[in-house]
Amino acid sequence: MKITRRNDHFIITQKDVSPYLDGCEVIGVFNPAAAFYQNEIILLLRVAERPIQKSDDILTVIFYDTKTNCIKTLDLAKNDSQYDFTDKREVRDNNKKDGSFCFLTSISYLRIARSRDGIHFKVDEKPFLFPSNEYETFGIEDSRITQIGDNYYIYFTSVSYHGICEELVSTTDFHHITYLGIIFLPENKDVVILPEKINGKYYALNRPVPKATGDPSIWISESDNLIYWGNHKYLMGLRPHNWDSVRIGPGAIPFKTSKGWLEIYHGADSRNRYCLGAVMLDKNDPTEIVARSDEPILEPQKLESKNEFLKNVVFTCGALCKENIIHLYYGVSDSAVAYTEIKLSDVLTILS
Amino acid sequence: MKITRRNDHFIITQKDVSPYLDGCEVIGVFNPAAAFYQNEIILLLRVAERPIQKSDDILTVIFYDTKTNCIKTLDLAKNDSQYDFTDKREVRDNNKKDGSFCFLTSISYLRIARSRDGIHFKVDEKPFLFPSNEYETFGIEDSRITQIGDNYYIYFTSVSYHGICEELVSTTDFHHITYLGIIFLPENKDVVILPEKINGKYYALNRPVPKATGDPSIWISESDNLIYWGNHKYLMGLRPHNWDSVRIGPGAIPFKTSKGWLEIYHGADSRNRYCLGAVMLDKNDPTEIVARSDEPILEPQKLESKNEFLKNVVFTCGALCKENIIHLYYGVSDSAVAYTEIKLSDVLTILS
Repeated sequence: MKITRRNDHFIITQKDVSPYLDGCEVIGVFNPAAAFYQNEIILLLRVAERPIQKSDDILTVIFYDTKTNCIKTLDLAKNDSQYDFTDKREVRDNNKKDGSFCFLTSISYLRIARSRDGIHFKVDEKPFLFPSNEYETFGIEDSRITQIGDNYYIYFTSVSYHGICEELVSTTDFHHITYLGIIFLPENKDVVILPEKINGKYYALNRPVPKATGDPSIWISESDNLIYWGNHKYLMGLRPHNWDSVRIGPGAIPFKTSKGWLEIYHGADSRNRYCLGAVMLDKNDPTEIVARSDEPILEPQKLESKNEFLKNVVFTCGALCKENIIHLYYGVSDSAVAYTEIKLSDVLTILS
Repeated sequence: MKITRRNDHFIITQKDVSPYLDGCEVIGVFNPAAAFYQNEIILLLRVAERPIQKSDDILTVIFYDTKTNCIKTLDLAKNDSQYDFTDKREVRDNNKKDGSFCFLTSISYLRIARSRDGIHFKVDEKPFLFPSNEYETFGIEDSRITQIGDNYYIYFTSVSYHGICEELVSTTDFHHITYLGIIFLPENKDVVILPEKINGKYYALNRPVPKATGDPSIWISESDNLIYWGNHKYLMGLRPHNWDSVRIGPGAIPFKTSKGWLEIYHGADSRNRYCLGAVMLDKNDPTEIVARSDEPILEPQKLESKNEFLKNVVFTCGALCKENIIHLYYGVSDSAVAYTEIKLSDVLTILS
């Protein structure tokens, strides 16, 4: 069975977001978290800004400097043999043989967009969360929001020389923020926290990346207080020769259905084609998988748009389910925010 | 100032340990955890066993099989182009470009050694902890013991296709074991838990290994119950051009001194020469470093022994401090257990 998409279109693109940083341009607004807040739907956008480049011979990179607490730029000569500039998103140090990067070409932070109808959004002028500590020197990337009562727990990927890890904050008003620390050590990202306790425990899906052996896989961890996590268990991995054969990670916050906790996750193959799939976790024990979709529930396709985006990545950090409709917000190829609606019952059918 | 070693010698070598597995030989007994228990000193030895090799053309590898709950071996033809046999400890899959391994050539588990005087040890015939779950398919490696009251918390590195992570068990009698789950996700090892709460929190040093960016570094994490961990903070990293320029990790359980919490850690340089250093953490806030030794406090040297070991690795998982003497148990080059005594006051002097 093929999932039918309705009403799909871009809802926020670069053009809707003015740069916040002097001398920079917005190169992408994507991968938003989503939440109901008062009478609005809030998206927490990842905005990526890049220094406007001065010359073809120089690459100007950008980072948050902890010594001055300011954003700084650095000019790297493109003929400097120390650096590998092959990947447009990052710079590698040729002295390091492990393929790790030493600079990013853009810096990401989080900005709020607000809407009454969930489709037409107004983007805040200023950041909601901006790099401010030693774990965020290369930026704050994809976020998620879990609402528990009046508290909104917001967690996001921090990138720095210390590695890629996940930080947690909370807010009740999307204005005042309480910092709750790093919840998952490097290398980990794509954390999604379930919105209620199950048998007395909170649960979070997350995606550690091992180095010496093993593949990036989805694990599930438990907690009493959302701040300290343990009893980590391997949940699911890559599927060779499938659409999720090379990369995998949690996507939207799982929501409760008649069949269990429904998680929409992302997977990619060796061509770096990112799709979304679905997995159902047991209602009373989310460490148990009830069903996993063989086929993607959402694949990259040519959206009717004049934007010139890559066409091979769909990636979600937030979906809102209401009256049998999944309102899916997703990033398109690290560039723009798109929206589509799919029927919850369709997804439940393919997971039966 | 140079630290003076006293009474140093090998205390346990392969010859003291009979193989537990059929068709295998003990290739190393090393990196022991140490604890006072009743009137004895207990070491928790890492024992590595390897299948006795049948032919020069074949490498027989070993693993714990979760389907049968048995140890299995597998013969790999040394001319099979899929595999890279360069490193004698592991086999790499040439189809994987990231340098990760797919088999180990030996399997490790934990065995108890007991002593009245702390120098002459008797090794148990059977394992204390042996691979038994999907996180331990390639073995259980370096362990540590933290005594809190009558409880001994034992935690160790688990190695499997899921990655390298840290599991926790507890015991009161070194016989009955309570399993407490995975406490640190892949890739992490060298966890050391401080033996008491400080300002209401437990603390653990640990060494995550990031992949996309960053170096292996020592972090410090906090907990209410030893099972769930969070508020992770970066503590200390590599020092370029120094003896701890390439690898670093916690070693012995920190112990309380007049100057703060003393941690003996390991570091290695680009020649893979492992030494031990010392770092002092603030008595009331162990996330703060008071002092770190410039020079190693213990370096590999030719011990007076007939064992033919490599001479470039000293590595500790356990030291016991009593009456101004640090009784240091340490592994020598993944082969044997050695012992030395150093004066606590000497270490405090170099950290002043």
